[in-house]
Amino acid sequence: MSDLDPLHPWLDALRWDADGLIPAIAQESGSGRVMMFAWMNREALTETVKSGNAVYWSRSRRRLWRKGEESGHFQKVRSLRTDCDGDVLLLEIVQEGGIACHTGRTSCFFHELHNDRWEAVDPVIKNPKEIYK
Amino acid sequence: MSDLDPLHPWLDALRWDADGLIPAIAQESGSGRVMMFAWMNREALTETVKSGNAVYWSRSRRRLWRKGEESGHFQKVRSLRTDCDGDVLLLEIVQEGGIACHTGRTSCFFHELHNDRWEAVDPVIKNPKEIYK
Repeated sequence: MSDLDPLHPWLDALRWDADGLIPAIAQESGSGRVMMFAWMNREALTETVKSGNAVYWSRSRRRLWRKGEESGHFQKVRSLRTDCDGDVLLLEIVQEGGIACHTGRTSCFFHELHNDRWEAVDPVIKNPKEIYK
Repeated sequence: MSDLDPLHPWLDALRWDADGLIPAIAQESGSGRVMMFAWMNREALTETVKSGNAVYWSRSRRRLWRKGEESGHFQKVRSLRTDCDGDVLLLEIVQEGGIACHTGRTSCFFHELHNDRWEAVDPVIKNPKEIYK
């Protein structure tokens, strides 16, 4: 029923892409809000599990991205899931400061399609200039 | 505050990857449950918006994947969001049959990491043999 081999070491059981990455969805515990989407490599995932705080791989900066390292908006990981074929991660997180997005919004998913336009439908909670000093 | 150009046509405003794809997260309306993760190309997204039912791009089969075409487990799309930099989609869906996963479970994210093992923690709602006849 599952494509994951339960006898396989958990890190190797995942299906990493050609770049050694796996997509990760961060969902807020309680509210169920999808906060952000990012990527992890093996090092990021290992550190996430060890530290209990979300660590991603920044594809643009090509380095580990310890979420919150600049903003203080750390993500404490409550649980970690993967899907049927083990190629995506779902993190249940507690969002420090209630803000995941660099724009100062709760969630990065704040553009909604209305007819043929993407509209920013969520309020800015905190000015990014106050977040990234 | 947003990296999306609001004057840009909505389909072009998105950031498609080198393969012309964008990741899509399907979240159940009401429960907030993350049901599955898949990919869309422009054709899949256009048809999704026009038809109101989720259409993905199957990377393994290299063809449009009209979710539910075999299982009957269609996903009616209530709303469509993208994130701050427009490179991921979030679909709010109503899941026909209450089953998104080909294993007969509600959500594809049914493996949870317990210590150093992925454990299948959600029940099978319906035998896949009954779904895919």
